[in-house]
Amino acid sequence: MNSISELKGPSVFIGKQGNGIISFGSGQPDLPPPVDVINNLHIRNDLRYGSIQGEEILRDNLSKQYPKSEADNFVITNGASEALDLIFRAMDNGKVLVPKPYYYSYPFILKRAGMTPVYTELKKGRIDLDDFNKKIKGCKAVLINSPSNPTGRIESLETLKEIEEITEKLGIHVVSDEVYKDIIYERDNYLIKGKQVITVNSFSKTYAMCGIRVGYLWSANREFVDRVIDIKTHTSMNTNLVGQDMAIEAMKAPQSYIDHQLKIWLRRRDLIYNGLKDLGLDLWKPEGAFYVFPRVEDPEGFVWNLYKKYKVITYLGEWFGSPKRVRLSYALDEKEIEEGLNKMELCLGRTRS
Amino acid sequence: MNSISELKGPSVFIGKQGNGIISFGSGQPDLPPPVDVINNLHIRNDLRYGSIQGEEILRDNLSKQYPKSEADNFVITNGASEALDLIFRAMDNGKVLVPKPYYYSYPFILKRAGMTPVYTELKKGRIDLDDFNKKIKGCKAVLINSPSNPTGRIESLETLKEIEEITEKLGIHVVSDEVYKDIIYERDNYLIKGKQVITVNSFSKTYAMCGIRVGYLWSANREFVDRVIDIKTHTSMNTNLVGQDMAIEAMKAPQSYIDHQLKIWLRRRDLIYNGLKDLGLDLWKPEGAFYVFPRVEDPEGFVWNLYKKYKVITYLGEWFGSPKRVRLSYALDEKEIEEGLNKMELCLGRTRS
Repeated sequence: MNSISELKGPSVFIGKQGNGIISFGSGQPDLPPPVDVINNLHIRNDLRYGSIQGEEILRDNLSKQYPKSEADNFVITNGASEALDLIFRAMDNGKVLVPKPYYYSYPFILKRAGMTPVYTELKKGRIDLDDFNKKIKGCKAVLINSPSNPTGRIESLETLKEIEEITEKLGIHVVSDEVYKDIIYERDNYLIKGKQVITVNSFSKTYAMCGIRVGYLWSANREFVDRVIDIKTHTSMNTNLVGQDMAIEAMKAPQSYIDHQLKIWLRRRDLIYNGLKDLGLDLWKPEGAFYVFPRVEDPEGFVWNLYKKYKVITYLGEWFGSPKRVRLSYALDEKEIEEGLNKMELCLGRTRS
Repeated sequence: MNSISELKGPSVFIGKQGNGIISFGSGQPDLPPPVDVINNLHIRNDLRYGSIQGEEILRDNLSKQYPKSEADNFVITNGASEALDLIFRAMDNGKVLVPKPYYYSYPFILKRAGMTPVYTELKKGRIDLDDFNKKIKGCKAVLINSPSNPTGRIESLETLKEIEEITEKLGIHVVSDEVYKDIIYERDNYLIKGKQVITVNSFSKTYAMCGIRVGYLWSANREFVDRVIDIKTHTSMNTNLVGQDMAIEAMKAPQSYIDHQLKIWLRRRDLIYNGLKDLGLDLWKPEGAFYVFPRVEDPEGFVWNLYKKYKVITYLGEWFGSPKRVRLSYALDEKEIEEGLNKMELCLGRTRS
């Protein structure tokens, strides 16, 4: 990159690593997957097509995590991305209410699927029910994401329950993207309920296996599940069988694997949150996922100078619909977070209080 | 199934196997993948995101099979299905000329991507250039498939070269689905050339690894490649990394692996082609892939009775746009093909000549 005007999206930083670069960019765990995903994996000899809906044993195992569910309520997909793409393609057209700032792929996926995004502005990184309830009229679906990428916030139980109620009353879908469900610092994840709910999830973040691309969707509405399968039959067929075998192994990992990772995330969260606060930045305390989303005076200058002068990668909030902020992922070890904070200190010409 | 009216698509036969059922249905090799795909596979420890475009070493290996190509001319996809889906989504809208009968997913993929299929009727299972040249006007692309599923035919070199010329002159895309390129009985595959050409391919049929879902597209037009990557970035991200590692191993298989399989396909082709001819059926001699596509008097009765009375699965030609025919895949061993022919003899009440 030679000019600040080239800051057009996260892809400008692809392949930038090593050489002393510290990246707060990439939204994926740096921690290892459960050892048995690799060590216990038995590579199948029969590589023929599998079920389009997904391997039954995997769906069956998942159903134990979802009350009143069966294997048939799930479709295994190429990551949460494909789940979202299929869900909105299955809706054909209509408006979708999306909290803003949003995960940067949402508007793209919605428009490509023929849907029209309508935005409700978050307040302090959380849904503002007044605005939400105004904007929901005429929408075919709402898309929520708690814990949120990029805000790192979670929605309160009251908010989630009100969303359950209002969407049920209006008869519209709630698509709940819960890929960070196992990285919450405040409480357990709350699975919203109802025929109108479609949950999106993934093995990527919980089990640190983003590149294996195994995600899934859940719905109590079997007719909707069938519409999704019908599309997937033509557009990608079954999800990679070895990837699914790895997901089956991952689910055998003890709870201590997840607990241990959560402890690491929490330490990192405290380190970066306090560090940025001490630098005088205005930011929300992350309650889940692994992002902080501070407000900075000159976001483009901040991202550009940090990268060009200090080899530190951060993302423009603009890519997530929030032009006054920058996003930092803290999926890197504490030593690097500390180093990154030192460089921000230099870059901003401030001393941490 | 309880009634002939339930014959709505190949999915009605999903999961029907064992119990003495002989299936001429499924379009996938029954032969084993190269042994090293399983035995030599080293499961990587690092399961983080890979390149959206695909692992460079895999694209680099592929580029050796395509004249004047580089790794950057390829995108690795979740099977040929996703390649087709991405290609047509990248075209946004417009008419696509499709030879009929067609692979049954084509119309669905095109319509879902916002394209409009226009059909040119095949003559004896091959493109009729007169009709093709008439219908091509106003199209944004043509989609060809040689060897063809369901006809088992290949296009002549003259036809392929004329398609090269006319599309270049008109400045429209040729999407060439060549997933059966290594199963041709008559000559080598011919790779059509030009900036306007987009080739779709897969590891599924050549290496008997359909369930691993690794396919790819090739284009000399780097701008088009970038459009595809841009969509895939949001809709599925990188293709499963272990699947790609298996594809890398598959490509190390000696030519003798492919030659050996071709010999088996050829023996089966002769067996079923002669068998059906001896039953008095009107059919084209397959020149590639592993399908025969005979004309039968009462296709629905044929498919229904064979399945209900004799446990033999065949597919309605109607699903492929050809209501007077039925499709039989000969991806099963010679003993089963022979048994299936005996049952067809009984079912049709005829004796083989």
